[in-house]
Order: sequence, then C-alpha cells, then structure tokens
Amino acid sequence: MSGALIVAGLGPGAEALVTPEVSAALASATDIVGYGPYVARVAPRPGLALHASDNRVERARAAEALALAAAGRRVVVVSSGDPGVFAMASAVFEALEAGPAEWRDLDIRVLPGISAMFAAAARLGAPLGHDFCVINLSDNLKPWALIERRLRAAAQGDFAMAFYNPRSKARPEGFARALEVLRAECGGARLISFARDVSGPGEHLLTVPLAEARPEMADMRTVVILGNSQTHRVGRFVYTPRFAPEAP
Amino acid sequence: MSGALIVAGLGPGAEALVTPEVSAALASATDIVGYGPYVARVAPRPGLALHASDNRVERARAAEALALAAAGRRVVVVSSGDPGVFAMASAVFEALEAGPAEWRDLDIRVLPGISAMFAAAARLGAPLGHDFCVINLSDNLKPWALIERRLRAAAQGDFAMAFYNPRSKARPEGFARALEVLRAECGGARLISFARDVSGPGEHLLTVPLAEARPEMADMRTVVILGNSQTHRVGRFVYTPRFAPEAP
Repeated sequence: MSGALIVAGLGPGAEALVTPEVSAALASATDIVGYGPYVARVAPRPGLALHASDNRVERARAAEALALAAAGRRVVVVSSGDPGVFAMASAVFEALEAGPAEWRDLDIRVLPGISAMFAAAARLGAPLGHDFCVINLSDNLKPWALIERRLRAAAQGDFAMAFYNPRSKARPEGFARALEVLRAECGGARLISFARDVSGPGEHLLTVPLAEARPEMADMRTVVILGNSQTHRVGRFVYTPRFAPEAP
Repeated sequence: MSGALIVAGLGPGAEALVTPEVSAALASATDIVGYGPYVARVAPRPGLALHASDNRVERARAAEALALAAAGRRVVVVSSGDPGVFAMASAVFEALEAGPAEWRDLDIRVLPGISAMFAAAARLGAPLGHDFCVINLSDNLKPWALIERRLRAAAQGDFAMAFYNPRSKARPEGFARALEVLRAECGGARLISFARDVSGPGEHLLTVPLAEARPEMADMRTVVILGNSQTHRVGRFVYTPRFAPEAP
C-alpha cells in the first residue's frame, strides 16, 4: 500500500493561522475528507477529490478515509482547530482499531493546528496563562454526571477552564446547568469569557462576571473560558498571572 | 505613540509549524525580544534589533519590550509553543499592570502558536482526545501544595493530563513526588508518554505504564502526557476515545 492518511488541523478560521505543514499536506493530497464546512475551506483543483460529510458521522467518515488510504490514495482528513482536541484524530484511531488489521500498517500522521481555545485566549489576553482544564460540554458521547464531576474537580483544583461545545439546539439545558454548578463552586465574581468565531467574519468577544453569565451568550461555535481565582482585567485584556498564592 | 507590541508563538521548533501570521509579524518588526534560544530562531536582517535575555527574567523582559513599544518601535516578544501557555503573554500583562498608565493605550496583540503539548499529542496519536488538564510542574511561582492539590483534583475527575516543566536541575525531587501522587490516584497501568523536543533535531518519544515511569525520563524540554482511564494503544499510537462510560 502506498497510500497515506494525514489528520490535519486547519486552525480556527483565518488562512494566516494555517501552518505551512498543513498547507503542504493539502497541496499534495488526492482526497480531502471532512465535515462540509471544513472541506469547503480547501480550494478545489484538478485531481483533488473532496468528500464532504455531515456532522455527527465522525466514525464513518474516519473509516471512509482509512479505506481510501488503503486503496493507495493520499488522504487528508480536515478538522478545524487542532485535530486532537474534540476533533477527528480520536475518531480516526477508533476506526483504525475497529477496522481490518492491515490498516495499522498505513502511513498515518496527525498534524497539529491552532486550537480554537488558544486563538480565543490570545484575543482576550492570557486567561489560560496558568494551569487549566479543557472540557467538552456536549453529552452526546459521555454521561452528564461525568461532565458535572469534572466541573467540580476543576473548580476544586482552582483551574482556569476552557469549554468546547457549550450549547446546541439539541441540548439547550446543559450549559445552564453547567453555569449553576460553576457559580456554586467559584462564586459570582469569577470572570467568564465568550469567544465566538475567533479570526472568522463573525468574531465576537464578551467577558462578564459569572453572576451575569447567561446560557444565550454561547452557541456551538463559541469557546467559553472561565478564569481561575486570580484571573482579572488589565485595560481591555483578561489574564491569569503566572504565580499563585497558597490558598485561593 | 505609533509603536506596537506583539507577543508571538513560534511553535515547538520546526519552521513548518510557524503560522503565516507570526512570520508576517516577524518580517515587519523592528525589535525581537525574548529568551536567547527563541530569539536565535529569528533570522537576523538589517534594521532588526535582537534583544536576547536569560531564562527566569520574564517580567523584566516584558517591561523592556513595553518600553520599546512606547518609544515607537514595532516589537515582537517571542515565545516557543503558544505564548499563552506558561509563556510570555501573562508576563507581558503583569508588566503592563505594574507599569505606567500610558502603556495601556499601546497596540498590543497576542498571536497564538502551535503548543508543545499539541505537537506532542499529534506525534503520539491523540492522547488528549477527551477532556484534559494542563499543569506546570515547576514550583518557582506557586507552592508545591497547590501542584499536588491540582494533580489530585485532575485524577479524581479522570482527566487526561499534560505536564509542562516536569523537571529541572534546581528541582530534581518534584517530578518524583508527582509520579508518586499520580500512581496512588490512577494506578500503575495508566499510560504515560514522554515527548522531548518534538519537531526538533532531538525529538524522542516514549510511552510506558505509570508503574514503569521514572523521573529521569523527563527533563525541562519534555512534555509529559498522562492518559485518562480509557487511554490505550492501537498499533504504534496512543489515543483517548471520544466517549466515556459512566464510572471510570
């Protein structure tokens, strides 16, 4: 088999945030596989097959990509942000594990990208400048009880937190519950930031005290960042100092 | 004031992991400020002043950069990885807060970079494919008790974990204690990966069960990634599935 599979991160949206490594992989691919809006970010050219699929079919999409690579194609699976953060890399390894043994001999590589949370943090200042946790608030693939347990553990460790997939039409109530848990654990003065479509045309940033946070401030394209006990504003920026006292 | 200050992430080492946005900022800078080895990654050219400083003087370096910007220079403060992750962005905001009020009117921007942990995770597979915590194991700027509290909180939430600055000559014993805490909380079968100088000339990867982990496997240039209860191997890769059962 001379095929290869690359899982590549396209970054949060802007072309200037795509690494040269990923651009080179896209330029030498024969097939691009991914969720429709991400495939649409790759310029069409003769000899390049675009395979766009719906959301929520990650595992089937990953198996399709592996089968194409096994047939000798040079396949790039595209993710937004970083492919290893709630994106396609884990789905590819799940499909690899469930698939034919010969797939394990394929040339498979993951290429990192600028994650949505780091693009958001950079625009805000440096809210993730100290220890932090990253939590996917979708309960599609894990029980809500585990999400709540992780929120409490992160609060008890006084971690800053970044939240992916805070809210969708299918799960309107989850984020409201998450905010309640966080208010109970962290208090109402803690700063929380909502960063939507960072580096894209609809970029919007909002920072409020946790007491004023409302579920409607987020949708599925929003990364939410909660500070730790030391996070505060300086001028128009939000940042977390590098030092920490004994007891927050 | 027409000066500007950009805090830019150079990524983990390889040129192909520097974003076009950061390359453009470096190309239009008049001054580069940073830790010596990072400044050395910027090609010298006429009209570009290079200000290299030692490690552990981050706050003074940040103040120097702000003063240069206030004097009308176009300054880029360089960090490795992402500047918002245990790097120069927080130091710049600390210096901004402590400095003259007029510094707050400066044009200040943070440009994200490929973090060392995501470069490491990509090489390993997808060990951070589910909820995870990021912890700096250096106790230069925080008490060891807080590090230990965060390790226990992260373990009790069944988070995967990425550790920065695991070990230095000045603190040889801290990482050994961290491994003891993690073994007690997570058991000896949990997978732990050591990724040194990813994308650089000395790249080295090692994954072992926690029972076999030794402090000597890490130095200050190593990112350490601990899986959650579901992390396992498929072929030569280590990955964490996107789904999680009720009780790990």
